[in-house]
Amino acid sequence: MLKEQLDKIMRPKSIAVIGASTKPATIGSELMQRLRDYKFNGNIYPINPKGGVIEGFQAYTNVLEVSGDIDFAIIIIPQKFVLETLDQCNQKGIKGICIISAGFKEAGAKGAQAEKDLLAKLNEYGMRCVGPNCLGVLNTHPDIRMDATFAEALPERGNIGFVSQSGALGGGILNILKDLNVGFAQFISIGNQADINAETAMEYWENDDDVQQILLYMESIANPANFRKLATKISKKKPILALKAGRSAAGASAASSHTGSLAGADKAANALLMQSGVIREYSLKNLFDTAKVFSNCPIPKGDRVAIITNSGGPGIMATDAVCEYGLQMAQISDATKDKLISFLPAAASVKNPIDMIASAPIDHYKQTLETVIADENVDMIMVIYLPFMGLKDIDVAKAVMEIKNLYPEKPVLGVFMTTSSFFTEISNMEVNMPFFMYAEEAADGLKRLNQQRLWVERPEGKILSYNVDKAKAEKIIKQSISEGRDQLTTLESIDVLDAYGIRACKYGLATTKEQAVRVADSIGYPVVMKMTSKTTSHKTDVGGVVVNIKSVEQLAEEYDALMVRLEKAGCLEGLEGVIIQEMVKGSREMVCGIATDPQYGPMMMFGLGGVFIEVMKDVTFRIAPLTDVDAMDMIKSVKAYKLLQGARGTKPAQIEQIQETLLRLSQLVSDFKFIDELDINPLLISEANGEGIAVDGRIKVRMPEAKEAMGCSCGCSSCGCH
Amino acid sequence: MLKEQLDKIMRPKSIAVIGASTKPATIGSELMQRLRDYKFNGNIYPINPKGGVIEGFQAYTNVLEVSGDIDFAIIIIPQKFVLETLDQCNQKGIKGICIISAGFKEAGAKGAQAEKDLLAKLNEYGMRCVGPNCLGVLNTHPDIRMDATFAEALPERGNIGFVSQSGALGGGILNILKDLNVGFAQFISIGNQADINAETAMEYWENDDDVQQILLYMESIANPANFRKLATKISKKKPILALKAGRSAAGASAASSHTGSLAGADKAANALLMQSGVIREYSLKNLFDTAKVFSNCPIPKGDRVAIITNSGGPGIMATDAVCEYGLQMAQISDATKDKLISFLPAAASVKNPIDMIASAPIDHYKQTLETVIADENVDMIMVIYLPFMGLKDIDVAKAVMEIKNLYPEKPVLGVFMTTSSFFTEISNMEVNMPFFMYAEEAADGLKRLNQQRLWVERPEGKILSYNVDKAKAEKIIKQSISEGRDQLTTLESIDVLDAYGIRACKYGLATTKEQAVRVADSIGYPVVMKMTSKTTSHKTDVGGVVVNIKSVEQLAEEYDALMVRLEKAGCLEGLEGVIIQEMVKGSREMVCGIATDPQYGPMMMFGLGGVFIEVMKDVTFRIAPLTDVDAMDMIKSVKAYKLLQGARGTKPAQIEQIQETLLRLSQLVSDFKFIDELDINPLLISEANGEGIAVDGRIKVRMPEAKEAMGCSCGCSSCGCH
Repeated sequence: MLKEQLDKIMRPKSIAVIGASTKPATIGSELMQRLRDYKFNGNIYPINPKGGVIEGFQAYTNVLEVSGDIDFAIIIIPQKFVLETLDQCNQKGIKGICIISAGFKEAGAKGAQAEKDLLAKLNEYGMRCVGPNCLGVLNTHPDIRMDATFAEALPERGNIGFVSQSGALGGGILNILKDLNVGFAQFISIGNQADINAETAMEYWENDDDVQQILLYMESIANPANFRKLATKISKKKPILALKAGRSAAGASAASSHTGSLAGADKAANALLMQSGVIREYSLKNLFDTAKVFSNCPIPKGDRVAIITNSGGPGIMATDAVCEYGLQMAQISDATKDKLISFLPAAASVKNPIDMIASAPIDHYKQTLETVIADENVDMIMVIYLPFMGLKDIDVAKAVMEIKNLYPEKPVLGVFMTTSSFFTEISNMEVNMPFFMYAEEAADGLKRLNQQRLWVERPEGKILSYNVDKAKAEKIIKQSISEGRDQLTTLESIDVLDAYGIRACKYGLATTKEQAVRVADSIGYPVVMKMTSKTTSHKTDVGGVVVNIKSVEQLAEEYDALMVRLEKAGCLEGLEGVIIQEMVKGSREMVCGIATDPQYGPMMMFGLGGVFIEVMKDVTFRIAPLTDVDAMDMIKSVKAYKLLQGARGTKPAQIEQIQETLLRLSQLVSDFKFIDELDINPLLISEANGEGIAVDGRIKVRMPEAKEAMGCSCGCSSCGCH
Repeated sequence: MLKEQLDKIMRPKSIAVIGASTKPATIGSELMQRLRDYKFNGNIYPINPKGGVIEGFQAYTNVLEVSGDIDFAIIIIPQKFVLETLDQCNQKGIKGICIISAGFKEAGAKGAQAEKDLLAKLNEYGMRCVGPNCLGVLNTHPDIRMDATFAEALPERGNIGFVSQSGALGGGILNILKDLNVGFAQFISIGNQADINAETAMEYWENDDDVQQILLYMESIANPANFRKLATKISKKKPILALKAGRSAAGASAASSHTGSLAGADKAANALLMQSGVIREYSLKNLFDTAKVFSNCPIPKGDRVAIITNSGGPGIMATDAVCEYGLQMAQISDATKDKLISFLPAAASVKNPIDMIASAPIDHYKQTLETVIADENVDMIMVIYLPFMGLKDIDVAKAVMEIKNLYPEKPVLGVFMTTSSFFTEISNMEVNMPFFMYAEEAADGLKRLNQQRLWVERPEGKILSYNVDKAKAEKIIKQSISEGRDQLTTLESIDVLDAYGIRACKYGLATTKEQAVRVADSIGYPVVMKMTSKTTSHKTDVGGVVVNIKSVEQLAEEYDALMVRLEKAGCLEGLEGVIIQEMVKGSREMVCGIATDPQYGPMMMFGLGGVFIEVMKDVTFRIAPLTDVDAMDMIKSVKAYKLLQGARGTKPAQIEQIQETLLRLSQLVSDFKFIDELDINPLLISEANGEGIAVDGRIKVRMPEAKEAMGCSCGCSSCGCH
């Protein structure tokens, strides 16, 4: 269905260019030239009120005048004429549309309305549409050959599917890619993405063998949940690389929780891309370099890198980069070393990095690569060449590619520290490996190959459903809402966590000494006793907290002493009683929580808690709901994971119990989508058994949403919510 | 003196090429071709036993045969003939030498001996020498025009002085620089640096106006202390950029202290470069990009960046990069905005980034730049151009440079996302600003300009000398050495710190209850009581530590109870007594210390202590001795500085007192250079007054060195050290 629809746009048999023009330096003229110059394999019908001949094609005043069928209409005329033109397209039976014209959503309220009207019309007519406010589309397949853009350069053929949200940037990119000899299969400039967006394109390309990797330039994500679903699936089949701009755009939210203040839109975008298996790049240069690597390399079997060089310095720099990017330097086998020694000169080094020395002839390149690539301890290879008298760089490259050809399953990357004329020459050749000028660029490529390997090998993960007491949580939240409080009290928050099976600090409220003893008995000693009052918030200032109470006698004694202190301090009024709380011993304070991004929805945080939260920012985020694998990734990705493993003689934490805590939190926010913020800080790691225990908790809801979801609690007389 | 000596090599009037050859693809032939092709402005005397004519120059069998004076001899003959050739050079009165021949230190023990002999001869003859095992030297000054290398490409003229420690890499770099149109003034391939090294070159270039920036490729630093002295001074006059390779070289030292295990050679190199004002780059690409920026930009007055673009997407990406690199987005003044509004179209955005929209003609580029560059709120400008129909990129570049020319004091960088032919064209033009393909590259350049500005503005700093009790420290250390202990006890360590005026936890040893009370009285309550024993090391396991003792009565009671516990546990044997220690209250644990790198010597560490040291690694290093500015830099450069400032309602720490602690430590290791490791962990920040207090300390010395420095303590009968 989607395929049929988008084929009308991306694989049309005939195109109408509505707004084609003979006037130089106009889109209507430039786009016609591209269609002609790139030799579109189908009929082209320029549409212009004046008729005539445009770029050698017979022009028509109207699509209805055209006698043949039209699959695809490209609209370049001013915004105010677009809607009526769609009516004509519909009459003509055109189902594929691309609107290049601007003046819609990007141009204020009036334009936004025009875009709404446009979308309604598209739906009414069953049309699919790229744009408006875009650069166009292209398909380099030999059967199609459609360059329906107005970018300067004609495209190179390759295996990339490219989606750009910025029109002008898309044009720049087409120029650069041409220059870098990075070719692509299809390109869609989605513009305002009124209808077709990155997700549509990904879905269309999922099973299109012509597209082997997907590149995205995005400033926003239309539907994060749908994006995640699609990308998670498709990225297992073909790499998805994304450049997501706008990360500094001061997300300075006035959030009141830790989780909230550490979050922000870019954290959410980053989490989404990460858990969807999308490789995020932070510059166009890196995006293109990575694309070049995926264009010419298989996914490796492991992360062990061998470096072959004719110069020590670059070998050292390459080793530096490989280690810093988290890859392993391969341990060359003894058999391989022996073989290398048999033909390399004595001054050569057969330890990785393998330095053949400056005078290495082409034969040494060939023999060394052939020997090393056959080594089972080696997963990927970087071959470095520095100019040496008497050798021609291009000959070395050809020799290396010849050997590489025999081992299609292992990635080989070339680092040729030579003149740009070499790269120009290479860009006009068929190659089976990528070539870079600098070792760091190649090492970066190896890192990306390994990242894709890890993602493909990563289990899919499940969203688990635990047996929880949802009704209890609902009741507590309802109570808070009915009292007009968007912020639950600590006790309420802890109760909600408890209802969801999250291990929280045990506690109970007592208003008499006898009650306090009963609560303490049920919890077990030692306990903490804290006053709780509607009027006194600074408990410690008035001596209202007593820790490490070890026996019933001590409790009774401390209770009396507390009451005396409070009376002296004039704090008996407003006193609700005392909270008797389990005393958890542990020095490791973690934090976990929920923050909500207006666009991406609820996301989970986990990391190092206590006083270090804001200073160290050793926290990580994922979009909810979490899979079990997501939760484990979170725990393992923070530096403080070492603390959980039992650094410096501490009891190892119960990692799976912490994982479950995150998953139960995720379930909580899935059940109550109006939870805006939730902090468990600290999640104390018990020194006794390594359990993660919620010692403090706070939950905040979005009131209007909560009211709607939970039934009205507004105080009106009709609903009976009180 | 140095100038005269090196002028013989870098500004010679005549050159002898000893080992010049007619055989193709030999160094003796290639180097002669370079000298000829680059049109050396002086006499060239090829020396070859066969005589004849080489590359058009009359050859001589021997330097003594040459009738004219010879300033500079380049030696290419096999290693075994080098020494006797030097004798002839000496006879001829030649004082400048460059030895390209290999077979010295890099080739095992025999070669190392040959290099020693070589150095002795150079000293004897009063010669200065580049190499051996190098690529040669060059000077592009129009009066000199010396390309005495065998690299492929002839050099471009520019203002860079370049030192390369790797010969082959040097050749690769010359090729690339030629291609990038980065020109240089002088180049020295130092090879084995038997005599002339990076420091010699820096000193030579310090007052050479032809060299405006210094680039270093280093794998090692010959004399770190001298390097620091020179670089600190010279980098204030002209930028020094360094690529220091070998940073992954597993410095896996088996150090026993925290400071030691977190240190390592690359940390030392990094510290040295940082405190010397050297800009460290981590890839050749970045090194060259930065050099391009310094070649064409003045040092800015501040860090406020304005971005001018004709496309939104790249404007966003540029903003992302500018913010991430720690620069400020300039607040454009209202007057500037008004002026921009007066000529830009309504769809343009006059907020920074200033988006002139895609259709911006050349005039808008000129007017916008002229308006923005005059704004006092703007220190640096990035101008972005994406291809637009009807505009030629090179015309836009020329227009921008025309305006830039009127404001020489403000850096302007171009980001032209266009084809490589633009960059080829630019590289053949005179330019007054650098052009890049990607916004991130330009932002990186802005960051470097700002870094240099901050360094130039940074006060020089002083190495202070405090009034300390050196004799007391000496006595304590001597005692430990005399007992054969390279590791001082905790008490000894604390005493040494105390002798150097470092605020350490007060304490005293007591063997009776009465003594304990006296000690506690002198310290002041509350105190901590700890058993100290020669046989029981796990004090806490046997209940040997009691904290928060508040009164004399409690102390007496706890003392008795402790003795009972120890008796029960069978721990009285070996008991030395109890330590009564000041009880410091505070939750912020910092760490400071000293580690020693075999090459760089003692270095200081400071950062977050406690259980987080190894997990967070929030520590920083500087080479000792520290200046006051270095010490303050250290404190401010760790994330935990926020904790010291008083995050989350804690008492702000006494920053200057902590600075003084570091400076006193620095003085300690300057006085006792054999201190191998020193840890103050934790340096607890007192919650009472913000003081940093050494609660625990350990000092380790290098025994043989310590014995030598402090007088023999080996147990022999003659020295009387016992």
